[in-house]
Amino acid sequence: MKRLRLTLAYDGTTYAGWQAQPSGNTIQQTLQKAIASMSGETVVAHGSGRTDAGVHARAQEVHFDTHAAFTTDVWHRGLNALLPPDIRVHQIRNAAPDFHARRDALRKEYRYRIWNRDVMPPFLRFYRTHIVTPLDTEAMRAAAAILVGRHDFAAFTANPNRDVPDTTRTLSLLKVTHRNGEITIRAISEGFLYKMVRSLAGHLMRVGSGSVPAEETSDLLASRQRTARVQTAPPQGLFLWQVGYRRNNGKR
Amino acid sequence: MKRLRLTLAYDGTTYAGWQAQPSGNTIQQTLQKAIASMSGETVVAHGSGRTDAGVHARAQEVHFDTHAAFTTDVWHRGLNALLPPDIRVHQIRNAAPDFHARRDALRKEYRYRIWNRDVMPPFLRFYRTHIVTPLDTEAMRAAAAILVGRHDFAAFTANPNRDVPDTTRTLSLLKVTHRNGEITIRAISEGFLYKMVRSLAGHLMRVGSGSVPAEETSDLLASRQRTARVQTAPPQGLFLWQVGYRRNNGKR
Repeated sequence: MKRLRLTLAYDGTTYAGWQAQPSGNTIQQTLQKAIASMSGETVVAHGSGRTDAGVHARAQEVHFDTHAAFTTDVWHRGLNALLPPDIRVHQIRNAAPDFHARRDALRKEYRYRIWNRDVMPPFLRFYRTHIVTPLDTEAMRAAAAILVGRHDFAAFTANPNRDVPDTTRTLSLLKVTHRNGEITIRAISEGFLYKMVRSLAGHLMRVGSGSVPAEETSDLLASRQRTARVQTAPPQGLFLWQVGYRRNNGKR
Repeated sequence: MKRLRLTLAYDGTTYAGWQAQPSGNTIQQTLQKAIASMSGETVVAHGSGRTDAGVHARAQEVHFDTHAAFTTDVWHRGLNALLPPDIRVHQIRNAAPDFHARRDALRKEYRYRIWNRDVMPPFLRFYRTHIVTPLDTEAMRAAAAILVGRHDFAAFTANPNRDVPDTTRTLSLLKVTHRNGEITIRAISEGFLYKMVRSLAGHLMRVGSGSVPAEETSDLLASRQRTARVQTAPPQGLFLWQVGYRRNNGKR
């Protein structure tokens, strides 16, 4: 048996997210079905983490085990032939037998992308969140500076304390850039809570629109309570951008 | 009555092209329907030219006449509210009463975009033509250099001599650029024949793949006959990029 590691890109528009669900319309199940079509095996494809319905991935990392004798090149071409065009395998390689896409992930980067002009170009409509009102990126940066670091992010997750008792995380980067009407929020952490990036983005968007003063961010963090003062930004602007592992991890 | 000029962007993926057809599923009819919903008027929206089924527009230029008293700003917001998100009005302004989007067009620029790597990123799948074999862009440039200028392009149009007796056109630019696996063919002319850009792109792609030597381009031009030696490239890589008018034309 060997373990394979895949780097996957997907357009999440029509999927109910990564994680398998009874509906069946998830990235994980679509991938597992393609693997089964190739090798006849029923496998579990382990992702570095879940992505919500409608969220995209530029580079999701996945591992699975197989007894099939295919080369990585045959797997690569076979899976891309079997998968729908909104899911693509960018890379596939042999991994160490103990490599684990989720547990070995050292850090993840998400990017939340906002189109901040009057008219949304039709070609971007599934891949950006559209905000017509000009956002104050200086205020967004002031709020982001408060959020960076090690904090209890209970106020910035959708279901605090439900299945994750410890809601403390280290946000190593939260950067707001603005270029040609497009605002990008980059978030890097060793791990994110459920809907944390969309909650951070939702908060920064409200700060940028002037609905919430940037300084209120400290109070929100300190409250450790999720309230309606923090809103979850819509999914289509969010991309799982990259997942970092220890050097050489996942290769052999 | 006044004449309005619109700059329109559209994702042509699900449309049967610009030009009105009995099926009804065209950009022109969708726009005319939105205008009728706003003002109650049955108008003809004149485009700078037709685009084929599946072809996109970054900036199609259109004019129509109206008796409605709406400001351009009300038209702008109203049409974008009524149109589906794959058609957007980027700009709308008052035009001179004799401005004509097609007849006054001095030049048009089309861009044909090819994704020339193994794996097509899912986010580009509707907006690029995918060619896996690496194309020889130097050979493509050599062929493009032969095509630039004033020629009879009968060999590079889909139905020569059918409704256009004179197939001579001046191609003022045909430029092949290559950046990060993406090849772009820019074509500028005072006017293009039916399926001319896709025929030029199809020919350049065959030259790039080594199926046809670049030098054969001269013979093809001289033949003035469309044969199977020139192939029409698929529509999804093509964008009507911009239309040029005399300075101040269309404004008043």
